[in-house]
Amino acid sequence: MQHNFFDFIGAEEGTWKTQSIQTLVGEPIPHAPFLTIQEGSLHSTPQATWALKGFKSNIRYTEKAEKIQLNQQSVSHARVEDTCATLIPIRKSEAWWELTQDERRAIFEQQSKHIAIGLRYIPAISRQLFHCRDIGQPFDFLTWFEFSPENVAPFEDLLASLRASEEWTYVDREIDIRFIKLV
Amino acid sequence: MQHNFFDFIGAEEGTWKTQSIQTLVGEPIPHAPFLTIQEGSLHSTPQATWALKGFKSNIRYTEKAEKIQLNQQSVSHARVEDTCATLIPIRKSEAWWELTQDERRAIFEQQSKHIAIGLRYIPAISRQLFHCRDIGQPFDFLTWFEFSPENVAPFEDLLASLRASEEWTYVDREIDIRFIKLV
Repeated sequence: MQHNFFDFIGAEEGTWKTQSIQTLVGEPIPHAPFLTIQEGSLHSTPQATWALKGFKSNIRYTEKAEKIQLNQQSVSHARVEDTCATLIPIRKSEAWWELTQDERRAIFEQQSKHIAIGLRYIPAISRQLFHCRDIGQPFDFLTWFEFSPENVAPFEDLLASLRASEEWTYVDREIDIRFIKLV
Repeated sequence: MQHNFFDFIGAEEGTWKTQSIQTLVGEPIPHAPFLTIQEGSLHSTPQATWALKGFKSNIRYTEKAEKIQLNQQSVSHARVEDTCATLIPIRKSEAWWELTQDERRAIFEQQSKHIAIGLRYIPAISRQLFHCRDIGQPFDFLTWFEFSPENVAPFEDLLASLRASEEWTYVDREIDIRFIKLV
């Protein structure tokens, strides 16, 4: 059993310095000058400007052939040159969650190429997914990206491709928060 | 956003009288003479002999054609004649959770006919699924069945079919708790 809860804490201090907070869809969140990410528990509630909690879970859409490709290309360790990071909390509409598994998979991959797009950018852009829909959080997912300063342009391309997809028509809240690592 | 947390509380009193507790695989749980089911929250921890928490979530394997059949045949209301109930908490092995979505779906339905077997017994046997793997509970799922006394034999057939399936080789903890409704 995994208890992989993580808190993303926006506050007056932290290990990542906030560069920008951009609300793309839905309600914004308050500005916090720094972020800390820490292992949490289901029950902890950090005091902060904002705190978002998520958990790692089993994969929900990825198929065997895709997992093999992802594992081959992914980096498992933090890279010292990855001083840029982005946190993207998103929520999807009830219409999305009412879809069946085959309908969601069809939109996710056959139409939107979510995994295929991501694969084009690894290992340069590292990505971790945290789930939060089922634990009463204001978002469904938190995605955390890390990359080096020379990979900012490819990262923008990755986001542009995903945001232009059919899948993204189901996103009803999205915030894009950029950080620089403090050294 | 749904906050559908439910507590299954085994205690000295309650609305369902325990008939039997049978541990099929793995560690047992203590005997409690009664059960209460109540809406809970993520953070509540009821005082009891045992308390199992689960949440309703989006469907994870069901496809469109299956959902249509399930919806046509399911009953949405509690039936007064359904005085028998069974709670089956199960946990699946890490080997199951390491599988990709297509591998799990293949075992779940192509090989094990999980949905097709269930469809044979609805509306007689009503069934509700609660998830608990991601919230640090000792089980991955709680399934709650309700049926009338004349449907005990079909219910046993349903369980026997599922337990004989390929999918069940991944179950590493299972307890079968039978109840009678207090009138």
